[in-house]
Amino acid sequence: MTTLLQHINYPNDLRKLNVNHLPQLAQELRDFIIDIVSVKEGHLGASLGVVELTIALHYVFNTPEDLLVWDVGHQAYGHKILTGRKSIFHTNRQLNGISGFPKRSESEFDTFGVGHSSTSISAALGMAIASQLKGENKHHIAVIGDASIASGMAFEGLNHAGVTDANLLVILNDNAIGIDPSVGALKNYLTAVKEGKNPKVNNMIKSLNFDYSGPIDGHNIFEIISELERLKKVKGPKFLHVITTKGKGLQKAEEDQVKYHAPGKFDKITGEIHLKEESHLPPKFQDVFGLTLVELAQLNEKIIGITPAMPTGSSLKFMMDAFPERAFDVGIAEQHAVTLSAGMATQGMVVFCNIYSTFLQRAYDQVIHDVALQNLPVIFCLDRAGLVGEDGATHHGVYDLAYLRCIPNMIIFSPRNEIELRNILFTAQLGLNHPIAIRYPRGRGEIVDWQQPFQKIEIGKATLLKKGLKVAILSNGFIGRNVTLAFDEISNSELFSQYDFSFVKPMDETLLHFIFKEYESIITIEDGTIIGGFGSAIAEFKSKYNYKNNVQILGIPDEFIEQGTVEELQRYSEINVKSLASVLSSY
Amino acid sequence: MTTLLQHINYPNDLRKLNVNHLPQLAQELRDFIIDIVSVKEGHLGASLGVVELTIALHYVFNTPEDLLVWDVGHQAYGHKILTGRKSIFHTNRQLNGISGFPKRSESEFDTFGVGHSSTSISAALGMAIASQLKGENKHHIAVIGDASIASGMAFEGLNHAGVTDANLLVILNDNAIGIDPSVGALKNYLTAVKEGKNPKVNNMIKSLNFDYSGPIDGHNIFEIISELERLKKVKGPKFLHVITTKGKGLQKAEEDQVKYHAPGKFDKITGEIHLKEESHLPPKFQDVFGLTLVELAQLNEKIIGITPAMPTGSSLKFMMDAFPERAFDVGIAEQHAVTLSAGMATQGMVVFCNIYSTFLQRAYDQVIHDVALQNLPVIFCLDRAGLVGEDGATHHGVYDLAYLRCIPNMIIFSPRNEIELRNILFTAQLGLNHPIAIRYPRGRGEIVDWQQPFQKIEIGKATLLKKGLKVAILSNGFIGRNVTLAFDEISNSELFSQYDFSFVKPMDETLLHFIFKEYESIITIEDGTIIGGFGSAIAEFKSKYNYKNNVQILGIPDEFIEQGTVEELQRYSEINVKSLASVLSSY
Repeated sequence: MTTLLQHINYPNDLRKLNVNHLPQLAQELRDFIIDIVSVKEGHLGASLGVVELTIALHYVFNTPEDLLVWDVGHQAYGHKILTGRKSIFHTNRQLNGISGFPKRSESEFDTFGVGHSSTSISAALGMAIASQLKGENKHHIAVIGDASIASGMAFEGLNHAGVTDANLLVILNDNAIGIDPSVGALKNYLTAVKEGKNPKVNNMIKSLNFDYSGPIDGHNIFEIISELERLKKVKGPKFLHVITTKGKGLQKAEEDQVKYHAPGKFDKITGEIHLKEESHLPPKFQDVFGLTLVELAQLNEKIIGITPAMPTGSSLKFMMDAFPERAFDVGIAEQHAVTLSAGMATQGMVVFCNIYSTFLQRAYDQVIHDVALQNLPVIFCLDRAGLVGEDGATHHGVYDLAYLRCIPNMIIFSPRNEIELRNILFTAQLGLNHPIAIRYPRGRGEIVDWQQPFQKIEIGKATLLKKGLKVAILSNGFIGRNVTLAFDEISNSELFSQYDFSFVKPMDETLLHFIFKEYESIITIEDGTIIGGFGSAIAEFKSKYNYKNNVQILGIPDEFIEQGTVEELQRYSEINVKSLASVLSSY
Repeated sequence: MTTLLQHINYPNDLRKLNVNHLPQLAQELRDFIIDIVSVKEGHLGASLGVVELTIALHYVFNTPEDLLVWDVGHQAYGHKILTGRKSIFHTNRQLNGISGFPKRSESEFDTFGVGHSSTSISAALGMAIASQLKGENKHHIAVIGDASIASGMAFEGLNHAGVTDANLLVILNDNAIGIDPSVGALKNYLTAVKEGKNPKVNNMIKSLNFDYSGPIDGHNIFEIISELERLKKVKGPKFLHVITTKGKGLQKAEEDQVKYHAPGKFDKITGEIHLKEESHLPPKFQDVFGLTLVELAQLNEKIIGITPAMPTGSSLKFMMDAFPERAFDVGIAEQHAVTLSAGMATQGMVVFCNIYSTFLQRAYDQVIHDVALQNLPVIFCLDRAGLVGEDGATHHGVYDLAYLRCIPNMIIFSPRNEIELRNILFTAQLGLNHPIAIRYPRGRGEIVDWQQPFQKIEIGKATLLKKGLKVAILSNGFIGRNVTLAFDEISNSELFSQYDFSFVKPMDETLLHFIFKEYESIITIEDGTIIGGFGSAIAEFKSKYNYKNNVQILGIPDEFIEQGTVEELQRYSEINVKSLASVLSSY
């Protein structure tokens, strides 16, 4: 059977269709996404929710001349398929494949690279002002979800756009959910608007000087097209409120929107997720965090947990269920999350603020100015530190060691395994009189039987893992496992000692002096940037005390690392087991 | 004559007064502030504007049991004077004196340290939630200006607070000005509210589920007290809109609110500013930026200038006057400023985004994710880099080298003098195909006759400043002047070469190899943190190529540096001329 989608490679092909064929195309596009994501994995629900909107946007607007910016980009699979990438869509999120997010270097239709949320309004406004100055008559459209628009940065964009006459259309894709359900007062307000409870005439968006229209049904393609056609003729900043359903068209995805955000492999007909046999695997680090926190919260009533919009991804969900009054999802609001934590800490609360490493970049000033400067003992739990794999360049947590190390008062710790994570959580809540950042990787550890009795960790102490003759390998946390595994692959392993420097700050200087005196050569390894990170700290130490030993620094090179499996990306960065074995063999 | 203020050292004293005496106290407090700031300098206008509000807050609420958070803190002089610091207020902003901002270590009445804007709602909400969990019946008040509340972080705080039942009172101190006049759609909305043009019933703040009241006259102390008394009894999140006049009570300060934000010394009766004889001084770096940008903008029509709320402080004002359609004050919105710049850059505009070094911390993720990852050639001009002096710990721009150096694609440049700043601005707008961060200090340079013809700077090239025999001093930008001056104070200057490594990234590795081969010892100096900065880069280089030379790294130690003059703080950090002379003499 010939399909419509078969003949559509670019929006120009799409625009030749009669509007009455678009619902059929929507069905085909949805099926195409489900077909591929069901076997290749990826983000599902968001893209299913905007199939009609995606088609309508490319049908009405003259992309790529008109500039379309997707916020976050989880929802851009349909966009990718309709803009030249249908035949390679199956390489989504793979090494050397297409990115899971819009990316400028991939297509001229991807006008702005995304991954982190809430950037689209600022970016599209920048484009719109540029067009205005150049005298170009283009349209500029930002598509943003209701979770993303509640982040401060989006408000800043709206606040500026409202006093310009830029030709900007902000489309709110309102499905009441981000990765987890949306939260906050704005969300409640938008819900009330949907339910007709707020007078359109005094709408909040209008207060910011936008031409507000909607809400309209985001699955009625005729209604969307007609409204977009109307808005094309309206000058200045415009705002269209579109109601969609995340996961639309796959019943199970509509019913369990959190699980079907990125469901892994599933049956494309029934939607049934293919369960992996997982019972004998080591736990995910995030679950070690989440489950341990519940244990600790039972013992220590001062403990509070905070996540900016990642209750599921961080596993703070466990504490939200067990102690709902002491666990807070504050929405996509990293800045607020950190300073809220600081405020609580001033009152003696023991605050675990869990933020993915890559997203703590969003709250860097708050870490410096509100926490570290006041030396408040906030406990930062940085999930997804190091290389994260398929999410790619936007999401790797490889800068944290460098950007945190220069901050006075900070303690920085990378657990070597699940038990160390568990014990540092325990230790931190006893009271450290300093802020601490605990960074741990995405995915699973190595210890199945991890729920051992708590033990206090001595702050700033490094650990000998293996004794050898000539070369000291200093590893930082879980990446040290690759070193241990590399020993099995080489014939000269007797040469090497291995030390775990879990603490990048404070450093175990006593042990370092011993090491520099005892060993000819030193190798450092970390899953962060070589520049400014753990190895850099060792190089600084060497300079400070004027040691002459060779120091070889292994870590992430000075470039943006793309997507792939963690193992593939470690190989690229030459910190995987095989690369390490080869380095060690040369000694 | 006995005054009321004479007998008031703490709010307890204040609370003993009859309410009818408060207007007199307000007059005395205002006079006290003017008396001291007129000779000791500091921030004037903001504190004059909230005299009545300050008295009313301490009169009505039971501080410090009730928790009062001032946003930014420019306006907290009255608060400091009424809370135990009247007798030392004359040490404001001096070395070992009191801080110009609320500071927890200084007083229990300073519940949260501030300096950067828009943190107060998050902090106070954190305190309010903590009180709730502890079963304490306290009040929690955030006082925030209309410029600060327009920043995204404040919105995040409101958005969260609106779905809690925390006992939080947000007071909007609406004077329509921050340091420069407020901007943005929210500001226009608030102005309309003041003018009675927006129906209170559908107020935007109410949309966020706050109990909104006001606007009220912030100089009518009886009205404020009565409203605060009423609000004490209202549960949940409350919002009071107070209208004040910045500089209230000093006519000239009311008339020129920008100049009287921090006027320097002035006549306390007439308000007349004591003009310094400045015509033969070297220019401020900020003016070199501002004036050069106008020159360049005349030559290159693609040039755009952006500032988040610092048109005067950055001197972008010159371009805003000359090319209003190409220069943008986006308000206190660093995140938006950076991504707006990125959006413009995608369309071929040449964007100069001027942000104080300390405030770029607010947009760190946007620099990484929106600019550097896409390798967009945004030109960041980081004013107030290094030690800033009297503003103190919250404002020093000493982390930038460390936090920028780990970002791929970035060029990082510190001009040695005004002409280098001028020439790098010229060079950058020619097109570098990379983002660049140009960091330069607060205050004046050293070259009166700086407006020389433009010369292109070679990217990544270091410069020999002085040739010597044994030791190479590598300085980064303007701090190198201290080295040059130190040579005049020592008897062994023939030993030392000096090289200016203006570029911390990319580094001049060719020259570095020569230096490591040619000289026994190397000294690096920078006005940034020793950890992770320029010296750290040299230590990394040394490790990478296995050189054995001694490397001594001079810079800012691993602690938060308090306020003082730049010279005093350089002395503390041992990078002033005398300290350097002493280091060099020991060779």
